[in-house]
Amino acid sequence: MANPIKIIVAGPRGRMGKEAVMLVNNTPEFELVAVIDRRNNGVMLSDLDGFSNMNVRIYSDVEECFQNVEADVLIDLTIPETGYIHTKTALSYGVRPVVGTTGFTKEELEELKELAEEKEIGCIIAPNFAIGAILMMKFSQMAAKYFDNVEIIEMHHDQKLDAPSGTAVKTAEMISENRSSQKQGHHDEQETISGARGADYEGMRIHSVRLPGLVAHQQVLFGADGQSLTIRHDSYNRASFMSGVKVSVETVMTLNTLVYGLEHILD
Amino acid sequence: MANPIKIIVAGPRGRMGKEAVMLVNNTPEFELVAVIDRRNNGVMLSDLDGFSNMNVRIYSDVEECFQNVEADVLIDLTIPETGYIHTKTALSYGVRPVVGTTGFTKEELEELKELAEEKEIGCIIAPNFAIGAILMMKFSQMAAKYFDNVEIIEMHHDQKLDAPSGTAVKTAEMISENRSSQKQGHHDEQETISGARGADYEGMRIHSVRLPGLVAHQQVLFGADGQSLTIRHDSYNRASFMSGVKVSVETVMTLNTLVYGLEHILD
Amino acid sequence: MANPIKIIVAGPRGRMGKEAVMLVNNTPEFELVAVIDRRNNGVMLSDLDGFSNMNVRIYSDVEECFQNVEADVLIDLTIPETGYIHTKTALSYGVRPVVGTTGFTKEELEELKELAEEKEIGCIIAPNFAIGAILMMKFSQMAAKYFDNVEIIEMHHDQKLDAPSGTAVKTAEMISENRSSQKQGHHDEQETISGARGADYEGMRIHSVRLPGLVAHQQVLFGADGQSLTIRHDSYNRASFMSGVKVSVETVMTLNTLVYGLEHILD
Amino acid sequence: MANPIKIIVAGPRGRMGKEAVMLVNNTPEFELVAVIDRRNNGVMLSDLDGFSNMNVRIYSDVEECFQNVEADVLIDLTIPETGYIHTKTALSYGVRPVVGTTGFTKEELEELKELAEEKEIGCIIAPNFAIGAILMMKFSQMAAKYFDNVEIIEMHHDQKLDAPSGTAVKTAEMISENRSSQKQGHHDEQETISGARGADYEGMRIHSVRLPGLVAHQQVLFGADGQSLTIRHDSYNRASFMSGVKVSVETVMTLNTLVYGLEHILD
Repeated sequence: MANPIKIIVAGPRGRMGKEAVMLVNNTPEFELVAVIDRRNNGVMLSDLDGFSNMNVRIYSDVEECFQNVEADVLIDLTIPETGYIHTKTALSYGVRPVVGTTGFTKEELEELKELAEEKEIGCIIAPNFAIGAILMMKFSQMAAKYFDNVEIIEMHHDQKLDAPSGTAVKTAEMISENRSSQKQGHHDEQETISGARGADYEGMRIHSVRLPGLVAHQQVLFGADGQSLTIRHDSYNRASFMSGVKVSVETVMTLNTLVYGLEHILD
Repeated sequence: MANPIKIIVAGPRGRMGKEAVMLVNNTPEFELVAVIDRRNNGVMLSDLDGFSNMNVRIYSDVEECFQNVEADVLIDLTIPETGYIHTKTALSYGVRPVVGTTGFTKEELEELKELAEEKEIGCIIAPNFAIGAILMMKFSQMAAKYFDNVEIIEMHHDQKLDAPSGTAVKTAEMISENRSSQKQGHHDEQETISGARGADYEGMRIHSVRLPGLVAHQQVLFGADGQSLTIRHDSYNRASFMSGVKVSVETVMTLNTLVYGLEHILD
Repeated sequence: MANPIKIIVAGPRGRMGKEAVMLVNNTPEFELVAVIDRRNNGVMLSDLDGFSNMNVRIYSDVEECFQNVEADVLIDLTIPETGYIHTKTALSYGVRPVVGTTGFTKEELEELKELAEEKEIGCIIAPNFAIGAILMMKFSQMAAKYFDNVEIIEMHHDQKLDAPSGTAVKTAEMISENRSSQKQGHHDEQETISGARGADYEGMRIHSVRLPGLVAHQQVLFGADGQSLTIRHDSYNRASFMSGVKVSVETVMTLNTLVYGLEHILD
Repeated sequence: MANPIKIIVAGPRGRMGKEAVMLVNNTPEFELVAVIDRRNNGVMLSDLDGFSNMNVRIYSDVEECFQNVEADVLIDLTIPETGYIHTKTALSYGVRPVVGTTGFTKEELEELKELAEEKEIGCIIAPNFAIGAILMMKFSQMAAKYFDNVEIIEMHHDQKLDAPSGTAVKTAEMISENRSSQKQGHHDEQETISGARGADYEGMRIHSVRLPGLVAHQQVLFGADGQSLTIRHDSYNRASFMSGVKVSVETVMTLNTLVYGLEHILD
């Protein structure tokens, strides 16, 4: 077997960070070599509740971490401000970042990309690591070449504030790259109760269902004469993100530039 | 075997009437005894294209038909104006009507009910004979006692003019009998694109999907902590109506009043 | 407002028992008056982790509990052996039991029923408290009167050992009360790969899907000419049971006999 | 606008052939120039029922047709024996064939491929022209790279003789190119009723539902920790095939070899 990929995880006590630590710990080809945490500097991770047997040091100083520890990949699922510093520092030390965030500005992304290319190493930054959701969007984009008519139904728990969901809008954006804006439905259709036909995104209709009990679900329906094609993703809990993190760690080792969005590394 | 139920069908050349003729002809417990058609008076039905072997007389005069032919049931799937006259005449001759229409006024229904009760015979008038659709509405009404939160998604071909569909509104009305008006979703939810949350019927949200290829489909989603319950009806073609006509013919023989709506005879 | 219903919960530290304690605590019309736990006798529940502010006494002796505490209802979600003793004792003290179990024998149920009727109080014993699942089964039984053809698809996580699931078999049993055994599918159909047509329960076909990520889902599909009717239940977590417990507590107050199975109290 | 593509359709009186004639007639970029039919040689198509205004000649002799009529494409949706001769003759005259069949042997396909490459023209032969079904298979194959666990549920009318369907088996074959054979479900799972877990194709389970009312439907379910991805195709009638024929006619003009299967021309 090849040497395992040496990984530093930032934010091990956060919800996502903890899942990432578990992922690295449970994957034979991965090896956890350190964690970055603003608290508990110098303590062993195994001394914290829920991390027994994970004998790696906690670093609060990012520079110190990368100076002292030889690593291949940084997994960062923290907040944008911290994440940006972690990513930049990792790149400067030749460590490949896998970062989950929607929060970087265009300028920050551009700067990080230049840094990655200068160092000739990979860097993956992704707003969404749920592979199933990414594939749903990618397949929808592909199907739009052959189906002119499409509607999106997204369904979430009733504590969600915004409608449509970010994933639904992102899906519509990706579809619109393969489709020109067009009115759907009958030319003379009428809503007898306002809103029945949903949100209008360049002619595509998006419907947002909110019910207690639901988690995060979306289906994209394509229709043509005599047939329909439906692509659906159901997310039940945040474990769904970890398969995407795993693929990203494996892929970032083979890249020599920055890639934004998991849809560009799945083929 | 008991004697077959003797049936007159009105409008045998119409799309639905023709299906009804076929139903009667293919059901061993039913017997076609005459048809009412404004054309072809006196001709045998078997002389018309597509009705070979159906040796019953065509009557254009309704009174003459009921005077000459001994029948148990009239099936009428014509238009409201004609249907009203057929129904009234049938009742006056002691023949039990099974009528598909949404077009009778409250006064007409009241008058026909009195006539049925005077004659002590059954009469079934139904806006929708698709048993699956009726059950979907009935079950939704029942489930509303136990689930406070519900949304309706109805999906039709893109030539449909009105949204939401009549069935969706009827479903919402039936649910509202078991549910007080209440806002659903988060108290502070916001539509970033208008219409995303659908039509609002006493707090229930109704979403109308229109795509080529689709026929007539509806799902009713109930949500509660940790679970959801979905009731869905798919109608692929008008054969779906005939099972309801069959049940109605059987049931009308046991009634001694007028029943409006199939939901009141299914238990 | 009427006086709240006074409730004793057995097994407060168990997974389901804890949910029941929370339910009682969060329902204004309910009042927690004591808990039964084989450990911690005499301690206040509020002294245990996760139960802050619940100032009721823990009893390890069941008789002592019912002697000392005035209560209307016992909720018991423990194991059959303990549950049987709790139920019997509760009835003898005039306290109405709501019990979740499949484990009582026919003789035990008969004995408990006699006791309930002697005391003229209600007692509800249910194998399944997920109202959505109960309604799915009940609606399926009702629909079977009008649809001769039905198949069941149940879908669970891939750690489940038995196929079909207990709920699928129970559903088929309930449907079979409204349906005579009949072969479905084409008379000459052939499986080119064995098992394709699923399990055969009196002609109904049951299909068991097992995939990681899934929780517990079932759909019942009815088909007839030109239409299909689908009834689906999705269970995401055990919170789904609590709505059934709540309805049972409310209903048991109005009964004067034992009812087995939630399907007999939902109408 | 570019010159329309000149098209000969074989078998205009067959169910699929007639749809193809209508497609060509209704597509502005296409032009019907002749039809091949073993009957009615020399008659104008417009003289046959249902083809009014289609003023093209009917040829019963294939050679004569290609000699007399200048054409770009032959659409052949007849039977394998006839189709093979038509295809070979078309290629020899430099006309690009679009052929719907599963019936050609490996040797015939090889021979036709050589002929197409010799003439440096395109030829598309496809077992299935329903683009939605092809995309479902293609997306399933792609998703199998990221999801180890998959099951297939196909649903058809109850007059279908074989289970699983050809499309389900073809889907499983395509998936297996991106997946090694592996047992799914729990290692110790047990069928309490035989067949519950469906047909086993290299560990993938295939479930065949047969109900009256259904037409042709298939869903492919992928599961992983915390999520599932579902790809579904519904075919309501044979109009679903025509979009694939249209794309094939457009694509065959750009090819210089034979392509077998629509999945290789959709990207």
